[in-house]
Amino acid sequence: MIYLDNSATTKPLPEVLESFRKSAETFYANPSSVHQLGSDAERLLTKSRTLIADLIGIEANEVLFTSGGTESNNLAIKGIAFKHQYRGKHMVTTTIEHPSVLEAFRSLESIGFEVTYVNVDETGRVDPDEIDNAIRKDTILVSVMSVNNEIGTVQPIEAIGRITKKYPKLFFHVDHVQGLGKIPLHIKSSNIDLCSVSGHKIHGLKGTGALFVRKNVSLFPLLHGGNQEQKMRAGTENLPGIVALAKAIRLIKLKEKNQLQELIALQSDLRHQLLQIDGLVINSPENSAPHIINISLPGFKPEVLIHKLADSEIYISTKSACSSKQSDISAVLEACQLTTDRTTSSLRISLSYQNTKTEIDQFVQALKSAIVHLTRSMRR
Amino acid sequence: MIYLDNSATTKPLPEVLESFRKSAETFYANPSSVHQLGSDAERLLTKSRTLIADLIGIEANEVLFTSGGTESNNLAIKGIAFKHQYRGKHMVTTTIEHPSVLEAFRSLESIGFEVTYVNVDETGRVDPDEIDNAIRKDTILVSVMSVNNEIGTVQPIEAIGRITKKYPKLFFHVDHVQGLGKIPLHIKSSNIDLCSVSGHKIHGLKGTGALFVRKNVSLFPLLHGGNQEQKMRAGTENLPGIVALAKAIRLIKLKEKNQLQELIALQSDLRHQLLQIDGLVINSPENSAPHIINISLPGFKPEVLIHKLADSEIYISTKSACSSKQSDISAVLEACQLTTDRTTSSLRISLSYQNTKTEIDQFVQALKSAIVHLTRSMRR
Repeated sequence: MIYLDNSATTKPLPEVLESFRKSAETFYANPSSVHQLGSDAERLLTKSRTLIADLIGIEANEVLFTSGGTESNNLAIKGIAFKHQYRGKHMVTTTIEHPSVLEAFRSLESIGFEVTYVNVDETGRVDPDEIDNAIRKDTILVSVMSVNNEIGTVQPIEAIGRITKKYPKLFFHVDHVQGLGKIPLHIKSSNIDLCSVSGHKIHGLKGTGALFVRKNVSLFPLLHGGNQEQKMRAGTENLPGIVALAKAIRLIKLKEKNQLQELIALQSDLRHQLLQIDGLVINSPENSAPHIINISLPGFKPEVLIHKLADSEIYISTKSACSSKQSDISAVLEACQLTTDRTTSSLRISLSYQNTKTEIDQFVQALKSAIVHLTRSMRR
Repeated sequence: MIYLDNSATTKPLPEVLESFRKSAETFYANPSSVHQLGSDAERLLTKSRTLIADLIGIEANEVLFTSGGTESNNLAIKGIAFKHQYRGKHMVTTTIEHPSVLEAFRSLESIGFEVTYVNVDETGRVDPDEIDNAIRKDTILVSVMSVNNEIGTVQPIEAIGRITKKYPKLFFHVDHVQGLGKIPLHIKSSNIDLCSVSGHKIHGLKGTGALFVRKNVSLFPLLHGGNQEQKMRAGTENLPGIVALAKAIRLIKLKEKNQLQELIALQSDLRHQLLQIDGLVINSPENSAPHIINISLPGFKPEVLIHKLADSEIYISTKSACSSKQSDISAVLEACQLTTDRTTSSLRISLSYQNTKTEIDQFVQALKSAIVHLTRSMRR
């Protein structure tokens, strides 16, 4: 089996599952319980929080645990909107954010907030100056993803951070779900106030994630209740999930340190091989994140190709899993203003540090065969 | 070790952990992915949803998966408030709900909603007629828990359901987090529109839960994004957690069927033994849920007793874990209008189907010794 849909989700690492199992069996007490078992659980919670903070380059009390990327993005955006709406009700984002960002903004528009969606160029890149132009006196939030989930474009986060810094009333949120472990992100020096990450995109577990919240930034909670997570996210802490998240972040950071060049080489090789295929267009920019290549095969229906590849146990995807069942058109590629024959025929190949050169070669062979096969069927 | 803090959280069953591990290892694909692995994951998701629906007595499309009880309660309350506010902005609940219900309501009060908190009697029971009296023309939601988490009072849900049914504009939410597997609850015949449950209170996993939403009831989502959970709760489904939740519900329902009489007998025995202790008052009503006994020991600080018992590896709690670190006073017992010497000296013993008669005997002995020991220290 060749799994090349790692931007939709990844296979959990055995070490991560083992950390989960151990904590669930041993440290099952409620960290809020006052007895010894509760304190033991709370100590492990603090240890995990500190480990993650150290790996990310922030402080322990800036780590807020959530149920995943979607919750982190919603909490960042709605949490700022509801809490700071008296400063202003305008927000800025881009046209190619993940649905959990775009739909959160649209829900706010339906209740009186105003959102400016800044356009991107044909490679998906946003111009920091256009972000600057969109900022108004009543703007309270700028939200830009570090890496686009469909085409892998890396956004100029540091440059945007230099701009948002000029506006002291403004918060800066980065959806780093696709970027973690793949591209560098300096939260402090990029002036980022809020940063979302997810466990299951980095060989961790589904249902785990975090929002990094700069000290003294306050949010209106989505989940009210107990005093957990500095009263910004109530609910009994999913301690085994949190331990597993800490493990997954530690391991992906190790991979990033030791195997990033390999991954870049693998992607470059894949790109080179794909370019040999007649009629195939690569939508991802040359300097995209190292794990995503988005292509179009004008004239072919992406689902048909996906099912054909699945016959050889090779798994790739159309666009974002979160919008994959809607239609053939990629909203991201449309926002990049690509032609319809490209926006309706796109495929995403997303790698992980586990993929090999042999797998890439086999995939390209299978793709070529599928194209030949389907071309013949179409001619019949 | 004798664990008697099962209302704070329970130890996950090995079978539940095994279900989690298997699904995480095998069905790790994103259920929204269009390829074969995605379809396999989606099939398992549907199977889990159907199993839970059958066990609960509802339909599969009435099961909405969340990250736990706190999210389920917040989604029910805020989801109805935001979606149906144009019908009216008044809601009714009781004074002894869980913090995730009370704080959700308080957050709504801060943004223009009105909430009536109906009083309870000294056993924690709410009078259905008082709920009826509180309902106004602009009331859109009534929220009452099935079992109180601190004293185990069982609320007259069916009678309240008969009342709410008279008001077609009204939704009825039941927080069933403490009740699931311990008391019968007939969602359909009790006219319940929304019902919250949690995995980790029934030997399932933290970070798992569900909200049962009657067909055609619409909610404003807390989490916007992809199309998961009928667009009422976005985010990649935590499939291993969902499989584990289905397993935990199946097993607790079996226990309820086969071992409920044993649990009732155990609690009755515990109650009988506790009544022999001088100065000890039982706060839980005679007809409380079978797993909770709340007591007061006027003159003793509850934390001191808890730590003393922990020396013998016996674990009980003060009040709700979600409010345990705030002060000695139990807000629930205060709402029951008990005297201060009782509200400041309460302890909760919460059983599971795993506890034994021997454990109960040892606990009572240890409690008696602790009382003698502490009485001596206080006299010195």
